[in-house]
Amino acid sequence: MTRPLAIGIAGLGTVGAGVMTVLRDNADLISARAGRAIAVTAVSARDRTRDRGVSVAGLRWYDDPVALAADPGVDVIVECIGGSEGPARALVEAALAAGRPVVTANKALMATHGAALAALAEQRGVPLAFEAAVAGGIPAIKAIREGLAANRLSRVTGILNGTCNYILTSMREKGREFAEALAEAQRLGYAEADPAMDVDGTDAAHKLAILAALAFGRPVAFGDVHVEGIRGVSALDIRLADDLGYRIKLLGIARCGENGISTRVHPCMVPAAHPIAHVDGVFNAVVAEGDFVGRVVLEGRGAGAGPTGSAVVADLIDIARGRHTPVWGAAEAALQPVATVPMSAHSGPYYLRLMVVDRPGVIADVTGVLRDHGISLESMIQRGRSPAEAVAVVLVTHECGEAAMSAALERIAALDAVLEPPAVIRIESL
Amino acid sequence: MTRPLAIGIAGLGTVGAGVMTVLRDNADLISARAGRAIAVTAVSARDRTRDRGVSVAGLRWYDDPVALAADPGVDVIVECIGGSEGPARALVEAALAAGRPVVTANKALMATHGAALAALAEQRGVPLAFEAAVAGGIPAIKAIREGLAANRLSRVTGILNGTCNYILTSMREKGREFAEALAEAQRLGYAEADPAMDVDGTDAAHKLAILAALAFGRPVAFGDVHVEGIRGVSALDIRLADDLGYRIKLLGIARCGENGISTRVHPCMVPAAHPIAHVDGVFNAVVAEGDFVGRVVLEGRGAGAGPTGSAVVADLIDIARGRHTPVWGAAEAALQPVATVPMSAHSGPYYLRLMVVDRPGVIADVTGVLRDHGISLESMIQRGRSPAEAVAVVLVTHECGEAAMSAALERIAALDAVLEPPAVIRIESL
Repeated sequence: MTRPLAIGIAGLGTVGAGVMTVLRDNADLISARAGRAIAVTAVSARDRTRDRGVSVAGLRWYDDPVALAADPGVDVIVECIGGSEGPARALVEAALAAGRPVVTANKALMATHGAALAALAEQRGVPLAFEAAVAGGIPAIKAIREGLAANRLSRVTGILNGTCNYILTSMREKGREFAEALAEAQRLGYAEADPAMDVDGTDAAHKLAILAALAFGRPVAFGDVHVEGIRGVSALDIRLADDLGYRIKLLGIARCGENGISTRVHPCMVPAAHPIAHVDGVFNAVVAEGDFVGRVVLEGRGAGAGPTGSAVVADLIDIARGRHTPVWGAAEAALQPVATVPMSAHSGPYYLRLMVVDRPGVIADVTGVLRDHGISLESMIQRGRSPAEAVAVVLVTHECGEAAMSAALERIAALDAVLEPPAVIRIESL
Repeated sequence: MTRPLAIGIAGLGTVGAGVMTVLRDNADLISARAGRAIAVTAVSARDRTRDRGVSVAGLRWYDDPVALAADPGVDVIVECIGGSEGPARALVEAALAAGRPVVTANKALMATHGAALAALAEQRGVPLAFEAAVAGGIPAIKAIREGLAANRLSRVTGILNGTCNYILTSMREKGREFAEALAEAQRLGYAEADPAMDVDGTDAAHKLAILAALAFGRPVAFGDVHVEGIRGVSALDIRLADDLGYRIKLLGIARCGENGISTRVHPCMVPAAHPIAHVDGVFNAVVAEGDFVGRVVLEGRGAGAGPTGSAVVADLIDIARGRHTPVWGAAEAALQPVATVPMSAHSGPYYLRLMVVDRPGVIADVTGVLRDHGISLESMIQRGRSPAEAVAVVLVTHECGEAAMSAALERIAALDAVLEPPAVIRIESL
C-alpha cells in the first residue's frame, strides 16, 4: 500500500471544515477511488480554539498560512482562505514555487491572477486544481475542460450565484421586493452581512471569467466582464416576466463569435421552457454549447460546506491518481488571446417597463423616440387604466443594439410623462 | 513536439464516422487540449467502398477488426462495432491482452463483460475507457467516477434511452398512441427498424448496470436489472398523468440502501416539478445523489454521431494526457460485491387505471381487493359517467409493496366488471 497523500489545509471556515469532514466521513471510499488514503496532516487558521465540528488534534498547526507551503511533510496544499490578494495569494504562489500541488476553491484568485499562477504551475510541472471555484459541487470545470474537450464551444451560460438565485426565486414565489428577500436570505445564511460581492454580480463575474477562459482557450480576463447585479430588479418586473412567458435570472453569459469573445453578467429574461428557467433557489446551473455535443446542462448546489468539500476532494483524488490537466485546459503557449467584444456592441431584444402618466399622447412620444433610434417593437402592453395617474407600460423590442437602446432610454427617461427611471432587462433567447 | 497519438478505429457506422469527423474538424483544438495530435492511422469495417462522409484514403485497412489489435503502428484501439459478443468482444480482448489502450462506445459489451474486461485492463495496466457508452455526449461517467468521487452516492436515476424519450414526448405532445409514435420515430431515424433493444428497455438497462457499478463500486451486474419497456404505455395514461401533475418517463433507477442495491428500468410517473420531467425528445439526463454534493443533474444529447463522437474523443484526449482512471472507479480488489434487492421487495406508490363497467358496486369491489392486500388509497378519480358502459377509473395508492400489488392486480383483473388488463405505472417521488 502506498503511503497516504498528506494534505495541508489553510483556512478552516465553511470550506476548509467541509473538506475535513468529507475526508473523514468517506475515508474508505475515497482511498479506494484515489488508490491511496488521503490524510490531513497540517492546518493553518486564525483561531486555534474555535469549534468547527472537526477535530484538529494531532495536526501540525501554523499561524502563518504561507509557512504551510514549506512543511516537508505536506504533499498537497488546499487553500480555503479566500480573497484575490493577501495570504491566499501568497500561499498559492509559495506552494507552486516550491513545486507543491495546490487545490483551491478561490474564484477571486483564479479570475484575477489565474494566468500568472497557471504559468508558475506549468513551469514547475505541478497541478493547480480549482473545481470548487465554480458552481460548487457541480463538476463544471471537469466537464468543460475534459468531458467536452473535443468540442469548439460557442457559448457557456450559467446561474453562478446561489445567493442571487435564491433572492430572485423568493421574490417570484412570495411576491417580495429585493430588500425583503435579501434580508430573509441573510437570516437563513444564504447571503452575507455585506452582500455586495453576491448581489452586485462580482462573484458571478469571477466564475464567468474562469468558464470563458476554459471554454475558449484564452487567458482569463476578469476585467473584461460586463457586470450588473440584481438590486434593480423589482417584484413587478418579475410578475410581468411571468405573464410574458419568461423568468428573470442573473446569468453569466460567455460567447465566442466572429468578432471575439463577449462576457457579461446581468439580470436576464429567460424563456420559461428553457431548462435553466427551472433552476431555482440556491441551485446553480451551467449550460455549455459545443459544435458536436450540442447543448449540455449541468445543475446542482453551488455553495455550502458539503458541495464545496465534494469538489475539493475530487481534485485531491485526481492528484492522488496522477491525473493532471493544464490549468486552462491547454499549455500556456497554446492559449490564444482573443479580442473582447465590448458591451456597447451587444445586441438583442429588450424588455422595458415604464411608469407613465395615463394620458393621451404618452405612448406616441415613447414609441417615437424608439423609432428615432431604429428600434422596432414586438409588443406593447399597458397594464390597467387610471386616467391621469401612473400606469405601467411594458414594451418588448425586436433585436436592437445596446448603444441605440442606451441613447433612446436617456431620452425616454427625460419625458415629462415618464415618472420613474425605466426598468430595462435584456431578453436572452438561449 | 511529441509524435501524434495513432488511433485504429474498428467499425465505421454512425459512431466510427462521427469520431473521424470530430478528429478532423477540431484537430487544432484537440491537439492543444491533448498536448499532441491525435491521428487515425488504421481502420476496419465491412465495406471498403461505402461513402461515409469521411475519407479513409491513406489509412491502413483491415477486413478483420481483430487484426487491428496487432498493428504495431496503432497506439489506441477505438471499438465502434457494437454488440456484446462477436468481433467487438474479440477485438477489445485482443487489444487489452496486447497491452493496448481501448476506447469503446459499447454499452452491451461493458454491461455484460465489463468485469472481466476491467480485470484484464488492470492486469495489463492499460486504460479501457467508455464515456460514450452511457448518455452519449453527456460526460456522465466522468462526472460520477471522478467529479463526484468524494461522495457516497445513494441513488442514480436516468433518462437513458433517447428513442423511448422521443416516443413518450411525442405521445404526450401530439396525443398519439405508442405504435404511431414509434412509426414516426423510425421515419425520422430516431428508432431502428427492429426497435426491441430500445423500446423494451434493454439498452437503458445496459446503461443503468454500468452507472450502478460506477456509483456504488460493485462489479457490474446486468443480469440483476429489472427491465420493463414502454410498449404498454397508452396515450390515455399520459394524459391522466398530466392531470395528476406527473410526466411519464422511462427511467433507469439504481439505489443503494441498507439491504443492498436495486436496479430497475420501467415507465415511471415523475412529479412535473422535478428537473427530469422537462427533459424531452431525444435528450437524456442523469441525476446523481451524493451525501455531500446533494443532487446533481446532467442533461444533453444521448445519441447521434456528434455527441457520441464527442465522448469518444474526450476519452482519447484523456489517454493522450496520461489521465487514467480504473474502469469501475477503483481497483478490482476494492470493489465490493453487494447484495441485489429483487424487484419483489420494491415498494412505492402506484398509479392504476382500470376500464370498468359504470355500474354500482364496481368501485367497492376494487377497493375491497386493495384493502384485503393492505393497500391504502391516496386518491380515486372516475373520469366521466356513462351508465353500463366502459369508464376509466384512476387509483393512486400510498406506498405499498410490489408483491401485494401484484397479488391485488391479479384479483382485480379477474373481476367481471373490469374490461381490460389494468394499466399500472409506478410513481417515483425522486
